[in-house]
Amino acid sequence: MTNRGHFYAVGVGPGSPDLLTLRAVDIISKADVLICPASAKKNESLALNIIKPWIKKQKIELVKYPMRKDVGGTWNLWEHVAKRVKKGCEQGKIIAQITLGDPLFYSTSCYLLTSLEKIFPKSHIHVVPGITAFQATGAKFGLPFVWQEDSFMVMPASDLQRIEQAISWCETLVLYKVGKVLKEVLFLLDKYNLFPSSYLAAYVEQEGEYLISNLKKDLTLPGYLVTLIIQTGHKSWNYKK
Amino acid sequence: MTNRGHFYAVGVGPGSPDLLTLRAVDIISKADVLICPASAKKNESLALNIIKPWIKKQKIELVKYPMRKDVGGTWNLWEHVAKRVKKGCEQGKIIAQITLGDPLFYSTSCYLLTSLEKIFPKSHIHVVPGITAFQATGAKFGLPFVWQEDSFMVMPASDLQRIEQAISWCETLVLYKVGKVLKEVLFLLDKYNLFPSSYLAAYVEQEGEYLISNLKKDLTLPGYLVTLIIQTGHKSWNYKK
Repeated sequence: MTNRGHFYAVGVGPGSPDLLTLRAVDIISKADVLICPASAKKNESLALNIIKPWIKKQKIELVKYPMRKDVGGTWNLWEHVAKRVKKGCEQGKIIAQITLGDPLFYSTSCYLLTSLEKIFPKSHIHVVPGITAFQATGAKFGLPFVWQEDSFMVMPASDLQRIEQAISWCETLVLYKVGKVLKEVLFLLDKYNLFPSSYLAAYVEQEGEYLISNLKKDLTLPGYLVTLIIQTGHKSWNYKK
Repeated sequence: MTNRGHFYAVGVGPGSPDLLTLRAVDIISKADVLICPASAKKNESLALNIIKPWIKKQKIELVKYPMRKDVGGTWNLWEHVAKRVKKGCEQGKIIAQITLGDPLFYSTSCYLLTSLEKIFPKSHIHVVPGITAFQATGAKFGLPFVWQEDSFMVMPASDLQRIEQAISWCETLVLYKVGKVLKEVLFLLDKYNLFPSSYLAAYVEQEGEYLISNLKKDLTLPGYLVTLIIQTGHKSWNYKK
């Protein structure tokens, strides 16, 4: 699998090194170059911290990106990185980009994969899945997400009208980045009597992890990168519309 | 983490042993008893095949279950298993249930966790997340699922009206068990001109894996446990309703 001249988008999971897959460890160990996205502000890569046990001779390339909602700037940055990846792979290198969680969910890998595919053969581009934050959060609460005829949905907590609709669309709804609109989301949960079946967490499998299962109106939080799980019920096989 | 007298629901991923997490391998290796769900028809456990590299002295308990949509029978079976788990844990054993994918998504662990929680302390019940079939399928196609303001949804392919609604609700929709309603679903994809952005797969990371990205009206399939990924577009940060 690790012939020379290949690119791997590798998910390293939510935070704890033992939530990496064996495949992720194998690729990271064999890579010549590891691309690690890092917030420009903090100048450190959480993904890089997670994989420290397996860092030996790999060349580390931090890609600093501004945490801004700038569509054009984001694509420009990753198109530039894609060109560097292409060049390295053509020189026979194994290049891996590591990202928190899974590379296909709200990850910088989404941009790099899309940009790279336009200029480099797809047969040399690979994705190694990783455990997402929502999986780790559900696991911490011991919370079955979906069975039988249930549906499951994930979205960022930005558009309140869409969140209100989603509550009626699925049996388990996961909202990311809840902190900034916490007050409004708590109002919605109260309106639909969903406090008893909602679960909030941050920094899951990281330092400072917090888990809250007794939500209430006047809740305040230390951060904004909060994951909220809302369960609206279950649809059994007997369910008929 | 592995004190005596604990229960672990462990996800073993979609099929390939190297898609287990290090934590899953650790728990499986240390367990006294491994509960392995097996279809009553085939009398074999795919999950058990996946973890063969780590089977030594663990006691294997196959739980055969009928593949029927029988709500009462299903709960009765898993309540019975929960009682056995409680008894074993109270004798100081480490008991792990292994399931394909992630324990919280359409898994027999959903029933066992729910049943066990009613009779055994939650502090002794744990979930080890695993790579789901939809993550493995997206990875094979190298298909970014969601970025920026996108939403993501998973549901079984049973209620066609609900599928048609879901196409307008989210940017990436994953349908499970598509085989039985394939003709009707293909009709929907054609109606909304979604053939170019739909991807179908079965047995991903297993023997006989097939991946189809050029869907068409007259498609026929060898099985029914098929996963379909439908992408309807992306919502960027600039998106305004």
